[in-house]
Amino acid sequence: MRPIKPKQLFHFFAIFLLWFATSCKQESKEKEIPPPNFIIVFADDLGYGDLSCYGNPTIYTPHLDQMAHEGQKWTNFYVGASVCTPSRAALLTGRLPARNGMASDKERVLFPDSKNGLPSAEITLAEQLKQVGYATAAIGKWHLGHHEQYLPTHHGFDYYFGIPYSNDMDFVGEYPNGDYWSQQSDSIKTEHFNVPLLRGTEVVERPANQHTITKRYSEETVSFIKQHKDKPFFIYLAHNLPHIPLFASKEALGKSKRGLYGDVVQEIDHGVGQILETLKAEGLAENTIVVFTSDNGPWLPFKTNGGSAGLLKGGKGTTWEGGMREPGIFWGPGLVKPGVVTDLGSTMDLFATFSAMAGLGIPQDRAMDSHDLGPTLLNLEPSPRKHLMYYRGTELYAARMGAFKAHFITQGEYRQFGERQDHEIPLLYNLDHDPSEQYNIALEHPKVIAQIQKIVTEHKSGMVLGKDQLAERE
Amino acid sequence: MRPIKPKQLFHFFAIFLLWFATSCKQESKEKEIPPPNFIIVFADDLGYGDLSCYGNPTIYTPHLDQMAHEGQKWTNFYVGASVCTPSRAALLTGRLPARNGMASDKERVLFPDSKNGLPSAEITLAEQLKQVGYATAAIGKWHLGHHEQYLPTHHGFDYYFGIPYSNDMDFVGEYPNGDYWSQQSDSIKTEHFNVPLLRGTEVVERPANQHTITKRYSEETVSFIKQHKDKPFFIYLAHNLPHIPLFASKEALGKSKRGLYGDVVQEIDHGVGQILETLKAEGLAENTIVVFTSDNGPWLPFKTNGGSAGLLKGGKGTTWEGGMREPGIFWGPGLVKPGVVTDLGSTMDLFATFSAMAGLGIPQDRAMDSHDLGPTLLNLEPSPRKHLMYYRGTELYAARMGAFKAHFITQGEYRQFGERQDHEIPLLYNLDHDPSEQYNIALEHPKVIAQIQKIVTEHKSGMVLGKDQLAERE
Repeated sequence: MRPIKPKQLFHFFAIFLLWFATSCKQESKEKEIPPPNFIIVFADDLGYGDLSCYGNPTIYTPHLDQMAHEGQKWTNFYVGASVCTPSRAALLTGRLPARNGMASDKERVLFPDSKNGLPSAEITLAEQLKQVGYATAAIGKWHLGHHEQYLPTHHGFDYYFGIPYSNDMDFVGEYPNGDYWSQQSDSIKTEHFNVPLLRGTEVVERPANQHTITKRYSEETVSFIKQHKDKPFFIYLAHNLPHIPLFASKEALGKSKRGLYGDVVQEIDHGVGQILETLKAEGLAENTIVVFTSDNGPWLPFKTNGGSAGLLKGGKGTTWEGGMREPGIFWGPGLVKPGVVTDLGSTMDLFATFSAMAGLGIPQDRAMDSHDLGPTLLNLEPSPRKHLMYYRGTELYAARMGAFKAHFITQGEYRQFGERQDHEIPLLYNLDHDPSEQYNIALEHPKVIAQIQKIVTEHKSGMVLGKDQLAERE
Repeated sequence: MRPIKPKQLFHFFAIFLLWFATSCKQESKEKEIPPPNFIIVFADDLGYGDLSCYGNPTIYTPHLDQMAHEGQKWTNFYVGASVCTPSRAALLTGRLPARNGMASDKERVLFPDSKNGLPSAEITLAEQLKQVGYATAAIGKWHLGHHEQYLPTHHGFDYYFGIPYSNDMDFVGEYPNGDYWSQQSDSIKTEHFNVPLLRGTEVVERPANQHTITKRYSEETVSFIKQHKDKPFFIYLAHNLPHIPLFASKEALGKSKRGLYGDVVQEIDHGVGQILETLKAEGLAENTIVVFTSDNGPWLPFKTNGGSAGLLKGGKGTTWEGGMREPGIFWGPGLVKPGVVTDLGSTMDLFATFSAMAGLGIPQDRAMDSHDLGPTLLNLEPSPRKHLMYYRGTELYAARMGAFKAHFITQGEYRQFGERQDHEIPLLYNLDHDPSEQYNIALEHPKVIAQIQKIVTEHKSGMVLGKDQLAERE
């Protein structure tokens, strides 16, 4: 055989590459790209400062860090309410919970003896996406009504596996020191909580084994992906941890320097890793968007069994930043343009964003609080969201306009129900300069306050409170 | 020409690759790898929470983030003192400043009318590395004595360009509200500070133009790298910002959402980017270690002109975590094994670490407080540092043993000089579980306190205070 000269070799190689690139391009033209799959990973009571990529020193979350590195890390991403039930309603409907009856001036959340749930007239993101053929699954905590007509399978989800309300409900026996607030996870067992685990509408385990529940949620997600890889899917994976009581699997226990709380967060992170691996292995990574966030800030009265809001003030239940600002990570190689986003976003925006990506408009027959973040996700354009309303129950406590946040009412942590303070002159903070809400600048910026007040007046004039669904008990 | 079959093509290609790999390996065997270059980028008053990779929401530091991603991000990395002069002495000598007279019970730092400086008997890291032929440069703030015999060129540095003390010293005129503490950077001009800029021992500019000083420090570093690429070098780049008063160049001004403080930090980050680019362009990246950290925590009384300690308590001047724990980023592709390190490290350890990498032992004729972090940097092995002593001046206020920190004395922020409290039973925190030092667990862990007290007793028995170099004024 005649030896081939290096120049010839390169020539051949170049031609081969050209042919390969051309044929790939043609192939992609021939195939119509289906709308993207969506996975929302929603943690419970995890704070702004609980991931390593958001500055936690001893909770190590390599998979979420990698997601943030390869995708977008949002640093001003918010929830619709600072407690469970209304926050979940906000995410799934793209509407403030005050509008759909999932916020109340009498109760904070739903309980096992609550009578009602998310009204059937509400349109969930799952119902929305089903219109264009998505397979839909809710895996994890629901907390939008445990009676059959309120369960996920009656709200647009093909499949459900999870617990219908919080993991600390249905407590059996007596708390260690006779008081809910003194409970420490290490003296409490999973059997103390008679929480049911459902598949569809059937109870398949009671009490739910909470040691393995995080692991099982991730596994169910992996299975659902594998079973539905041939059509677009939407998975709402709402972990019921790290809400107290804390439990971790044998594999996760003792893995984190942060103690049990860290073990739990790291087990969630581990599951995220499995999900990303599955997406890659199944060839779905390039057409799937994975979002990670949490329902509200850390439950501070539980000390080291609660999380951290990092440099933000306050926690769960308050309208300080620590109660409502959360990690917001968007991953989607080939779709999401990598970067750090400091603009405003909200879990309520996922409704309009994913609808638009699936080729759907948003409902026109009702007030919506949802902005399409697509241009920001795909091209790092400025976020269309310029304002944010901070509700506690059905009352507006604070409002943000760009960098500025005005507090009209403030109140302490959820545990103490704090002292409510009505501010004749609102407290004003520049959150871009002063994220920890330390330096009230109201007196220097009367015009800013006037502008915010104008926006709030407009907002209030358009607010029709939904019929309270939380107050009624059985 | 006979067509070549794909199989033949692959065959040739494989042989070519094998030959290429083998010849590279042989070449590297032939060349002796010189000891690595070291660059320490040292910020001033920058807090634990001031970089995006440590959780800051509106300061965007892509180059430092990239360094952290490609290298090691240390989350328990400390300084030797919570104010300027002693912290710098600790880094450069690998010794607690109480030992070398750079901590005092009368003064916190050196001033323009101070008489003394770092004693010539002290061995700096520059003197150490010069023994094996390193080219050495100090660029930026010195603050270890401004009289000629104390300047960098008399302490082992071949080259010096920078200011001899803090950028807020030598103030000319009157403070806006007649009070140092009320100064706000935006009402203050660089001309108000008659700080000299030195090259070697000569004043080349006075007052130093602080608008361009950060940029010029980075440029000087780039030049020094280019001029010394043929032998090992050590550059100590000690930015004098973001210490107040804050100034940024035209190019950096208004770039950060965080305001002027953010502009300044982002200009430092931009310079880090230029340094890394230069290392890559000059083919030095694979044999250079770049470290980024800061001298002490944020100066909180300056409000938004000061930084943030993130989730840590307190700031500059205190022995709370916010005063002494800092970002610690180690970058060195091919040398530093990427990862997040939660073990203990200190700026004092750079002395032993870099000495070992350069093939040097550490001085045996004096007490050293320096551990070789090499095995952690190169192989992610556990850090050899197990304890940490927190001094305020010449007094030991607190000690850390593994996760536990005992406070024997606490005192408020530097501005107020707080209220000193001596604790008969020390305050005890588990920093791994409770990084914000919120939950005192002294009563639950008397044995831990006893162990720490034992370590402290041993430490104190070996402590000989150096002659106070800070107290004497001219």
